[in-house]
Amino acid sequence: MDVNALKQQLLQRLSKGRYEHVLRVADTAKRLAVMYQISVEQAEQAALFHDIAKCMDRDNLRCGLEQGNEDARLYSFHHELWHGPVGAMIARDEFGISNVDVLNAIRYHTTGRANMSMLEKLIYVADMIEPGRSFPGVENLREQAEENLDTAMGACIYQSVQFLVNKRVPVFPDSIDCYNEYVK
Amino acid sequence: MDVNALKQQLLQRLSKGRYEHVLRVADTAKRLAVMYQISVEQAEQAALFHDIAKCMDRDNLRCGLEQGNEDARLYSFHHELWHGPVGAMIARDEFGISNVDVLNAIRYHTTGRANMSMLEKLIYVADMIEPGRSFPGVENLREQAEENLDTAMGACIYQSVQFLVNKRVPVFPDSIDCYNEYVK
Repeated sequence: MDVNALKQQLLQRLSKGRYEHVLRVADTAKRLAVMYQISVEQAEQAALFHDIAKCMDRDNLRCGLEQGNEDARLYSFHHELWHGPVGAMIARDEFGISNVDVLNAIRYHTTGRANMSMLEKLIYVADMIEPGRSFPGVENLREQAEENLDTAMGACIYQSVQFLVNKRVPVFPDSIDCYNEYVK
Repeated sequence: MDVNALKQQLLQRLSKGRYEHVLRVADTAKRLAVMYQISVEQAEQAALFHDIAKCMDRDNLRCGLEQGNEDARLYSFHHELWHGPVGAMIARDEFGISNVDVLNAIRYHTTGRANMSMLEKLIYVADMIEPGRSFPGVENLREQAEENLDTAMGACIYQSVQFLVNKRVPVFPDSIDCYNEYVK
């Protein structure tokens, strides 16, 4: 996969702000990959692809879910949750990415899930702590990411679920499974 | 079902405090049943049975789950969640209760679930607002129970899930399904 060609594709598919977020996630993911001895190439690939479907409209995302025969539970949740699975499909079908771990890191980067791989955790955490993020508590998550990827993932999913519940927003079952794994 | 004979059984199986809680839930359930035109007999029955397994020890509860071939996900959650399903089994197998709605009201009174019946909601709410309860926010739940049983159920499951998450306690999938139904 030619990284520069992929970046050209991203520039066409994403807003400028979203593209810059993706580059920051990729930088963060590569740095953490070195630290945790995860493939830097896979980390960069998953990071560059993670939001490739983010700027698609709701109807196109829905078409993607239908074509890919994705988890039917997604339809009754906000389409904000759809760009991960659709992004994984695009990476596979339009860009020939075949590594299942890379595809799952793209697929589950918004919801998390139980039994995440190190690469999946890496992308979830990198997306949440990249230097452009500024929500309350992000500094603590950044510190945890320097110490232990697994603990950082637990802190990230906890923060996400708590945020959703306190805002009375639906929580996708995969996210609660992930949360339960960490608080058990 | 002879109510006085059942109360004698409850006195043998429950601590004094728990037995008195059960009587208060039954009184609350009967009052709400009249208000919402639900069978008072079924409401009383479900209420009297709802905690029948509450004072069983963990090993006996586990035996009950195994014998009843209950939802395998329960084993990885705290045994506080086991007395509902085991109570429903006891009501059916030892007391001959055959009404599925009554049995489900007993079974799901701790976790809630999606698509609850009116009787299930009634027991869930009555258990949470009976006059012996004194947690922060209970007065608001009591007021809502006077207005609309469905809204009260939503407020109760929201309060339960928020309480668990803020205490970093696992949330059973049925509870999140119930929560999602109300916040969507």
